[in-house]
Amino acid sequence: MSTSNQPVDQFMQAAIDEAQKGRDEGGIPIGSVLVHDGKIIGRGHNRRVQQGSAILHGEMDALENAGRQPARVYAQATLYTTLSPCPMCSGAILLYGIKQVIVGENQTFMGEEDLLTARGVEVHVLQNDVCVQMMSDFIEEQPTLWNEDIGV
Amino acid sequence: MSTSNQPVDQFMQAAIDEAQKGRDEGGIPIGSVLVHDGKIIGRGHNRRVQQGSAILHGEMDALENAGRQPARVYAQATLYTTLSPCPMCSGAILLYGIKQVIVGENQTFMGEEDLLTARGVEVHVLQNDVCVQMMSDFIEEQPTLWNEDIGV
Repeated sequence: MSTSNQPVDQFMQAAIDEAQKGRDEGGIPIGSVLVHDGKIIGRGHNRRVQQGSAILHGEMDALENAGRQPARVYAQATLYTTLSPCPMCSGAILLYGIKQVIVGENQTFMGEEDLLTARGVEVHVLQNDVCVQMMSDFIEEQPTLWNEDIGV
Repeated sequence: MSTSNQPVDQFMQAAIDEAQKGRDEGGIPIGSVLVHDGKIIGRGHNRRVQQGSAILHGEMDALENAGRQPARVYAQATLYTTLSPCPMCSGAILLYGIKQVIVGENQTFMGEEDLLTARGVEVHVLQNDVCVQMMSDFIEEQPTLWNEDIGV
């Protein structure tokens, strides 16, 4: 878990692009992509505002957009997400046996990384400045909406 | 966790009705309702087959159909589900701080009841015959579909 000002790889960049798309839509700026065999098979961003959804967090949206997949695909997939995954999204990661998760940052919100690690999931936190800034700005601007999204 | 041949209450009956609706649609027979202040505020059933969904388990569908709710509603709500909740659905329960979960049965599938209990959620298992029979029949008929739904 080191801080980094390094350029992110194409997959984290795609997750950040998704988060920014969500923000542009007036939503919560969290994005995610599911990668298998070097390709993005699902992209998503938080849709609480846009669709009035209680379950479409960024990671869930990426999983949903990847469609029905066999267990062997999830087992070889990597999930990229701009923010530390909450209990629901972490549960989805465990359900499908996704073994690797790349997290943009866990500074503005700490999800269930310990549970994931305890269950054998490899979690890498980039502590990326762009991800931190997006969430910091959002939380400052819309604390009530943010609290709703994390059940507070 | 006692076995019961007793009639179920109106809320578990509503969850069973949802499960049977799912089965009638050619889907996976798991249903759920979210109850607040003595009223059902969200009903749902598994929609993997019907909507090609990877995330709409019965409980998730009920939460989604309940719409955006403030934390205080979830804190006073009870989730009824015909089957022991998987890691994803258990994660959603933890995210939203739902404090009570009534489970139709955990004989055909054991979800994350221990995790829920460890986090302070009250879990009651009815071991209801109708729920067990629905799932036993389904798993026997469509083992591949069932395995896909639980990431196996």
